[in-house]
Amino acid sequence: MSLVVIGTVAFDAIETPFGKTDKIVGGAATYASLAASYFYDKTKIVAVVGDDFHQEDIEDFKKHGIDVEGLQIKKGEKSFFWAGKYHNDMNSRDTLATELNVLADFDPIIPDSYQDCEFLMLGNLTPQVQQTVIKRMKKRPKLIVMDTMNFWMDIAMDDLLATIKMVDVLTINDAEARQLSGEYSLVKAAQKILQMGPKYLIIKKGEHGALLFHGDQIFSAPALPLAEVFDPTGAGDTFAGGFIGYLAHVGTINFNNMKNAIIYGSALASFCVEKFGTEKIRNLSESEVAARVQEFVKLTNFTI
Amino acid sequence: MSLVVIGTVAFDAIETPFGKTDKIVGGAATYASLAASYFYDKTKIVAVVGDDFHQEDIEDFKKHGIDVEGLQIKKGEKSFFWAGKYHNDMNSRDTLATELNVLADFDPIIPDSYQDCEFLMLGNLTPQVQQTVIKRMKKRPKLIVMDTMNFWMDIAMDDLLATIKMVDVLTINDAEARQLSGEYSLVKAAQKILQMGPKYLIIKKGEHGALLFHGDQIFSAPALPLAEVFDPTGAGDTFAGGFIGYLAHVGTINFNNMKNAIIYGSALASFCVEKFGTEKIRNLSESEVAARVQEFVKLTNFTI
Repeated sequence: MSLVVIGTVAFDAIETPFGKTDKIVGGAATYASLAASYFYDKTKIVAVVGDDFHQEDIEDFKKHGIDVEGLQIKKGEKSFFWAGKYHNDMNSRDTLATELNVLADFDPIIPDSYQDCEFLMLGNLTPQVQQTVIKRMKKRPKLIVMDTMNFWMDIAMDDLLATIKMVDVLTINDAEARQLSGEYSLVKAAQKILQMGPKYLIIKKGEHGALLFHGDQIFSAPALPLAEVFDPTGAGDTFAGGFIGYLAHVGTINFNNMKNAIIYGSALASFCVEKFGTEKIRNLSESEVAARVQEFVKLTNFTI
Repeated sequence: MSLVVIGTVAFDAIETPFGKTDKIVGGAATYASLAASYFYDKTKIVAVVGDDFHQEDIEDFKKHGIDVEGLQIKKGEKSFFWAGKYHNDMNSRDTLATELNVLADFDPIIPDSYQDCEFLMLGNLTPQVQQTVIKRMKKRPKLIVMDTMNFWMDIAMDDLLATIKMVDVLTINDAEARQLSGEYSLVKAAQKILQMGPKYLIIKKGEHGALLFHGDQIFSAPALPLAEVFDPTGAGDTFAGGFIGYLAHVGTINFNNMKNAIIYGSALASFCVEKFGTEKIRNLSESEVAARVQEFVKLTNFTI
C-alpha cells in the first residue's frame, strides 16, 4: 500500500514584495510529496529532473521518507525551470520564464515497487501524462486526486476532459471552475463538473479557503487569516499533498474524512506561504502541525 | 429595553441579470429592522421618508412588530431614491441615480419612548447623523453597531473616524477595511482598525463569508454557497440587522454570542439575495430561519 505523487520537480526563481530567490527547488510533486510525508510514510514520487538537480534536494526527499525510485534523472539535460513575480496583492503574478527542458518529453515510468499504489496524486502537468500514469497502474488505485489549471483548459481541453473522467477528486481554483463549467455560480459550476466524472470536487479560493462538493453535500473550509503572506508559490500543491496524505493515513474514503483532509491540507498550505519556496514545509514538527490544525478548529467553531 | 435601528428607508429601482423592478421599498433601516424583527420583538426605527412613501409599507413594519414612532414623514417632500444596475458577476454595480430628497437635511429625532435603547444599530448614513443619534441617547446603549461604506471614507474621513471611535462593533467589507487601514492583509487591517475604537470588527466578504476580529481572536464564517443570487441589494444591512437582533435576543455580549450572531445574520442575508428587494425577508417563517441556520452548521462542521 502506498501513495504515489506525480508532478513536476523543478527549479523556481521567485520574486515577491518581500524579496527574491535564486533558483530554488520547487514543483508540484515536491510540495505535494513533502506535505503528504507529514501524515503518511509510504509516499513515492514519479517525476523527471536534469542532472543539474541538486543531490542534497534528493536526499531531503529521502529524509522525509519519500521514495524517489520513480524520479528520473536525465543525463546532460536541464530541469524544468519557472520564474515568476508576484504583484503586491499576492493574488496575481507574472510568469517571467518557463523552460520546459526535461519536461518536454516526460515519459512517466512507474517502478514495479509503486504498483501497490492505493492513493494517487496527479499534480498539475499535461493531462496526457496524468492519464498515462493512471493507465500504467496495473490495479486502479482506491483514490485518484487530480490537480490541474486553466492553461490546460486553454490548449488541451479534450485531453483534460478525458483525464478528469478517470479521477475521483478534482482540485481547481474558483476561476478555473467557472472556466471549465461555463457557470459563474460555484454551486452550478460544481454540479456540472461533478457530471464530468469526479465524485468529489474541491474548489480552492486562496485566502478565502476552499469548498468541497460531493453529491448534494457542501463543506466550506476557511483559510487561516495571515498577517503576512510571504510567498504563495506551491500553496495549492501543498494543500493537495496534505489532503491526500491525510486520507492515505486514515485509509477510509468518506465525506467526513474528506472534510478533515481539507483542514489538514489547509493547515500545511498556511505554513507554506510563510517562507520562500519549500523552506517552511521542509522543517515542521508534528506538534506545530497539530497546533495549526487546532487554530482552524478555533477559527470556525461555533455552537448553535 | 429595546433595539433602535437608524438608517435609510427609501425607494430603490434595481436591475439585475434576472430582471428589473420599479420603485420598491429599500434602505438600510428597512432591511436591518426587518431582519432584526425575526429575533427580537422590541425593534424601533429612526428614519425619514417623504409623503410619497406607501402607507402599506409602514403597515408592514408594524406587522413585523417594528416601532415606527421615530419614522418622520415629511409633507410635500420625496423619499430618498436609489437606482442601480448589477453586472453579470453580481459583485459590482453601477449607480444609475441617487436622489437624496428628504435625506439631504435629515435631523434624526429620538422619541422619548426610544430612550430605553440598549442595542443601537447605526445603518449606513452620513457619519455625522450617526454620531448625532449616539449623542441624543440619554444613556449610552450597551452595544452600538455601526455600518458604513467607502463613500464616507472618500468625502468625510474625519467625521467617520470620530464616529467609529464611539462604537463597539464596526461592519465593513474587505475593500473598505483595506481603504480605512491602508493595509492589504486583513489581519493587519483589523489590528489597525481595532485601535481606532471598536472592540469588535466584522469584515464582510460577500460570497466568501465574514471575519470577526476581537483582540487576538478571529472567527471565520462562510457564506452559504447559492446556485443563484437574484439581487444582492440589502444583503449587508440584512446581515447587520440579523446580527444585532440576535444579540438583543440573547442579551449578553461575548465572543461566542457574537459568533452565533454572525451565523444568524449570514442566514438572513442568504435569504435576502434570493428575491428582489425585501420580498424574501418579509415573509420568512421561524422554521425556515432555523433550517437555514442548520445549513450553516452542516456547511462548516468537522470533528478533529
